[in-house]
Amino acid sequence: MKIFTNLPAFKDFKNQLTDHSIGLVPTMGNLHAGHISLIKRANDENDLVVLSLFVNPTQFNNPHDYQNYPKTIEADLAKAKEAGVDMVLMPTEQEMYPDDYQYRIHSEANIGKVMEGTARLGHFEGMMTIVLKLLLLCQANRAYFSEKDYQQLALIKGITKAFLIDTTIVACPVIRLQSGLPLSSRNSRFTPTQLQKAEKFALLSRSYQDISKLKASLLQDDIQIDYIEEHFGRRYLAVHVEGVRLIDNFPLKDIITS
Amino acid sequence: MKIFTNLPAFKDFKNQLTDHSIGLVPTMGNLHAGHISLIKRANDENDLVVLSLFVNPTQFNNPHDYQNYPKTIEADLAKAKEAGVDMVLMPTEQEMYPDDYQYRIHSEANIGKVMEGTARLGHFEGMMTIVLKLLLLCQANRAYFSEKDYQQLALIKGITKAFLIDTTIVACPVIRLQSGLPLSSRNSRFTPTQLQKAEKFALLSRSYQDISKLKASLLQDDIQIDYIEEHFGRRYLAVHVEGVRLIDNFPLKDIITS
Repeated sequence: MKIFTNLPAFKDFKNQLTDHSIGLVPTMGNLHAGHISLIKRANDENDLVVLSLFVNPTQFNNPHDYQNYPKTIEADLAKAKEAGVDMVLMPTEQEMYPDDYQYRIHSEANIGKVMEGTARLGHFEGMMTIVLKLLLLCQANRAYFSEKDYQQLALIKGITKAFLIDTTIVACPVIRLQSGLPLSSRNSRFTPTQLQKAEKFALLSRSYQDISKLKASLLQDDIQIDYIEEHFGRRYLAVHVEGVRLIDNFPLKDIITS
Repeated sequence: MKIFTNLPAFKDFKNQLTDHSIGLVPTMGNLHAGHISLIKRANDENDLVVLSLFVNPTQFNNPHDYQNYPKTIEADLAKAKEAGVDMVLMPTEQEMYPDDYQYRIHSEANIGKVMEGTARLGHFEGMMTIVLKLLLLCQANRAYFSEKDYQQLALIKGITKAFLIDTTIVACPVIRLQSGLPLSSRNSRFTPTQLQKAEKFALLSRSYQDISKLKASLLQDDIQIDYIEEHFGRRYLAVHVEGVRLIDNFPLKDIITS
């Protein structure tokens, strides 16, 4: 596994690989089984896998959240190697933003104007900007994203189409604990007791057809609600559990009421 | 000279040319000696020249201006061939905007917030968006732009740096009539008498150190002023002559007062 901590070396190496299909897995590090499932799929479908590890400052609307984003580079590299990553790209902030973020992607797409789009101002612009840069750098055949960030996935498909990029965006299912709680780097911030509460959120999410009843039930368990909405046959949720923001989404058919 | 009226054929052909250096000259057609000078320079400095002909709807803040933009495709192709263009790219609007312009480049750069940036709302976003798409499509070694649109040039350098694109942006001097009037597709809208008035604008522009005296003189000649400003050792002007908007810029040292 080759590790690139600067862009010129990555570009030079990458440019020699014209005869290989490449799968890109963009991440912010702190790898868990969700990321590993993306890497494994990329490995199955391509000759080579590029994993990017970059905590993108421009997509954090909350500086506190950025400062506290878990950084576990050594463990990440060990997991990446074991999962079959061929190249790790770990660029610096200065390399990814030589313009100090003066130039960015803006979207007028409706999917970016609701839920996460209003709850986290600037988040999508920062996310789209960094993803476009990574797509351009890697020129992969395929890039892998989880359905966990469903609006993000839709916007990434949008920029790929809009900017005429040949990379296929592969949407991958959310990896969950048995309780239904999606794997997330943020879960690592929970104590075991807090994790139980997060798992309760996951269970309740799927237990009510009626959103107002679901909201009442979550509030009763001291879970703060950012939004719960349903669009295009899916339910989308964002909540705060013990100060940690969690999001989820799933098809309405997954709702099971007793 | 190969002419591509659709993107897939262009991409296929372009992808076979990995061993050739490529110079890109993006235009909106209605070629004049200014464009030809860009093509010739591209020819001198590269193995192959790609000329794009695309009247980009998203950079027109004025629909009337877009409708009236001169379209002279047959003459353009003849001039391109004579000037040594190897490939002409003439994509459709649908091909360049499969997203209906839902995704665009936004800039926070100061250079985009003055003069043309305030006079033509949305112009720079449309321009940056189409130029980024063309840069990505062509993956040229060099791309050629005139200094006539000086703010545009600065923003194009900005997006190229920001999005980590390997194409070198080559700034080329403005080509002018003897009067000093810059060549422009819009000049073709003038009658000979109107052209004389436009040339008077060019002469006056360089004849006053004092901007308020220059403004008074232009108004006396029935030339309406959008702005006249000086930044970074250059004077920038935008005026209306007989209903046609003209812009110019030049170093302050070019001002000659009698």
